Amino acid sequence: MDMLQVFHMNKGEGDASYAKNSAVQSNILSMTKPFVEEAMQKFLDNEIPDTIAIADLGCSSGPTALKAVSEIMEAVKCKWRQAGRAGPGSGSPKFMVFLNDLPGNDFNSVFASISNFQKKWKEEKGGDFGQCFIAGLPATFHGRLLPNNTLHFVHSSSSLHWLSQVPPGLDGKDDNPKMVNKGKICVSITSPSEVINAYKLQFQNDFLSFLRYRSYEVISGGRMVLTLMGRRFNNFATEEDCYPWEFIAQSLMSMVSEGKAVHATYGAQVVCLGQVPVPGTGLIEERMVDYFNAPYYAPCLEEVKQLIEKESSFSRDRLVALEVDWDGGNENDDDYDEFASSYNCTPLTRGEKIAKMHRAVSESMLGHYFGEDMLDELFNRYARILDQKLIVNPNAKIINLVISLIRK
Amino acid sequence: MDMLQVFHMNKGEGDASYAKNSAVQSNILSMTKPFVEEAMQKFLDNEIPDTIAIADLGCSSGPTALKAVSEIMEAVKCKWRQAGRAGPGSGSPKFMVFLNDLPGNDFNSVFASISNFQKKWKEEKGGDFGQCFIAGLPATFHGRLLPNNTLHFVHSSSSLHWLSQVPPGLDGKDDNPKMVNKGKICVSITSPSEVINAYKLQFQNDFLSFLRYRSYEVISGGRMVLTLMGRRFNNFATEEDCYPWEFIAQSLMSMVSEGKAVHATYGAQVVCLGQVPVPGTGLIEERMVDYFNAPYYAPCLEEVKQLIEKESSFSRDRLVALEVDWDGGNENDDDYDEFASSYNCTPLTRGEKIAKMHRAVSESMLGHYFGEDMLDELFNRYARILDQKLIVNPNAKIINLVISLIRK
Repeated sequence: MDMLQVFHMNKGEGDASYAKNSAVQSNILSMTKPFVEEAMQKFLDNEIPDTIAIADLGCSSGPTALKAVSEIMEAVKCKWRQAGRAGPGSGSPKFMVFLNDLPGNDFNSVFASISNFQKKWKEEKGGDFGQCFIAGLPATFHGRLLPNNTLHFVHSSSSLHWLSQVPPGLDGKDDNPKMVNKGKICVSITSPSEVINAYKLQFQNDFLSFLRYRSYEVISGGRMVLTLMGRRFNNFATEEDCYPWEFIAQSLMSMVSEGKAVHATYGAQVVCLGQVPVPGTGLIEERMVDYFNAPYYAPCLEEVKQLIEKESSFSRDRLVALEVDWDGGNENDDDYDEFASSYNCTPLTRGEKIAKMHRAVSESMLGHYFGEDMLDELFNRYARILDQKLIVNPNAKIINLVISLIRK
Repeated sequence: MDMLQVFHMNKGEGDASYAKNSAVQSNILSMTKPFVEEAMQKFLDNEIPDTIAIADLGCSSGPTALKAVSEIMEAVKCKWRQAGRAGPGSGSPKFMVFLNDLPGNDFNSVFASISNFQKKWKEEKGGDFGQCFIAGLPATFHGRLLPNNTLHFVHSSSSLHWLSQVPPGLDGKDDNPKMVNKGKICVSITSPSEVINAYKLQFQNDFLSFLRYRSYEVISGGRMVLTLMGRRFNNFATEEDCYPWEFIAQSLMSMVSEGKAVHATYGAQVVCLGQVPVPGTGLIEERMVDYFNAPYYAPCLEEVKQLIEKESSFSRDRLVALEVDWDGGNENDDDYDEFASSYNCTPLTRGEKIAKMHRAVSESMLGHYFGEDMLDELFNRYARILDQKLIVNPNAKIINLVISLIRK
């Protein structure tokens, strides 16, 4: 599977879109805002360039696409005020913003929102303070993005846990692979050690090259604030450390079990890899699950720390693990419930809300591999599993790492 | 009508898309290639920056979107070879490319083609020669686009004849306007002198501010190559000088005449401005035509020359008027005819081909104002008018101006 061609958040602004299902990512942006402010203000302690060049890597589409940029620009405005340079004028810093994501991202919808964003910024900030130029940068951040010494500030949120590729040997290209991640679709507590090592190695390579590429692009003294999904422990100690893929795999395997029952009834032989056994039923074959692995890895703090030291272009300012609610907190509940009551729908359960969010992120990838017609069934099952987990542990949290770095 | 929100070339890659109907624009790019090569090679006589920053303003979507950029990069490659620096390597220049168009442009489809473009460029040029970073810049070129001193080379083709707005007084905002462009939808040989002057003034203001904005963005010694639709004479002497709007207006007025006949039959009174009199018939009211004016102006060489001198930031290297076939020449005829024969369709007439091209450009604007349901009828009539004109004058030409400038 070519990530560059296949993978994207759900497009548009419909009910299933990423734009309507990104509460967790939005919540993470709010929680990490103080780190962004701190980093930008420290950067400006040393210099205030005429034009501050910012890149947001993995900007996605929808309301979160410009949220980080807005926070970063706001931090500059605050610093400017603190320094007693309150008024608008030609001396105030300008912004060159690069919004980066894979070419399949819905840039059309992001671009449609830019003129309102610029208008609002201008109205709120007054006059020509902080003139803002915005460009889209359609490319993978696992490669070079811009010329040398272009950027003052790099931000990336909820993106760096995506690997550049499925680890070699786990990508389903080999008919008789040496290692199989049986019944799982990502690194898991029950994965064989060689699978765990393959995932670890892929993350190491990707994160090291990410730092190296950015070291060319960020000027000396420039800053990066990166947030990504992480895990609590160095080993894979709990199911939650492998969230959400652990529970999606459980949902898939429950479909496999029922598929077997269907085939026993009809006496059908199912041998073809990459084909849904009973078209239209949405049921799937065990080998398909065994051979699919998501290009995703949530590191622990210690792993990230070691890699930053090894690569050595950036010094650490902060390295923190934050707990985040599985469903992004309650800030969007009112919208959901209002929608449900106005259409006489049953309000969504917490599990259903989370499943919708994860579907908006992973549908392009899972649909491409397993086929579109199994997605409704899969995410219904996933929602039920999450609901059960949330009964046992209603305050379940996920881990998000915040990494604040300075280019040496 | 807010150009920024409404106006865009027809999206996607379907039969009616701009991507499939841009033979004239593609032909103009081929014809002006020598001017682009010359300008880039002269620029490189003075310096070869580590990274050459290029902007293509009004890049649109489809096959022409990256054609100009490809030609510009090719010119650099040639110069590099001529200078005896043949091999790839870290010393070869890199490219930072900004693809600019209005936010409504189909950037998603442009971005989808970038990775193939980069791959092909890399294969053809060998190794890491000319590493190329590409960004989209969704904004109007009638305003600032980038920070000061960002660009070495600006290119714009088939775009600068679009004004930033309909000239004031002709934009239909006033119920009792002082001037009316009766039976026309753009400046025309029969337009009253105040209408002609309003159009001239709007172009002057737009072109002067375009030069001023670019003067901030282009480094000293940097180059611009601009092509736009032009006219032969200083006055509006022929219908062809007002092409294509003159003939679209004739098509609209023929629909108005038939609409009157319909109303005489039914005895209906039609007074509402901005409303199709008989919904579904696609027929339209005379006042609607009188009150619509396209934000378009094709200048003559002398006008452009005077404005460049008046603004004074750029010196002229070349200023040329080229003749171009109405239908973009015959280079795309084979495709059309092959398609028609494989589907047992009647091959398109030349008028129909041209009408399809102009529909791909103007549909968003005309459909927004007159309503979508009149477009098929309008462009059928337009095709018939063009066919008649081409019988009288089978070698009809349009004028394209080429302007090659140096930032002082």
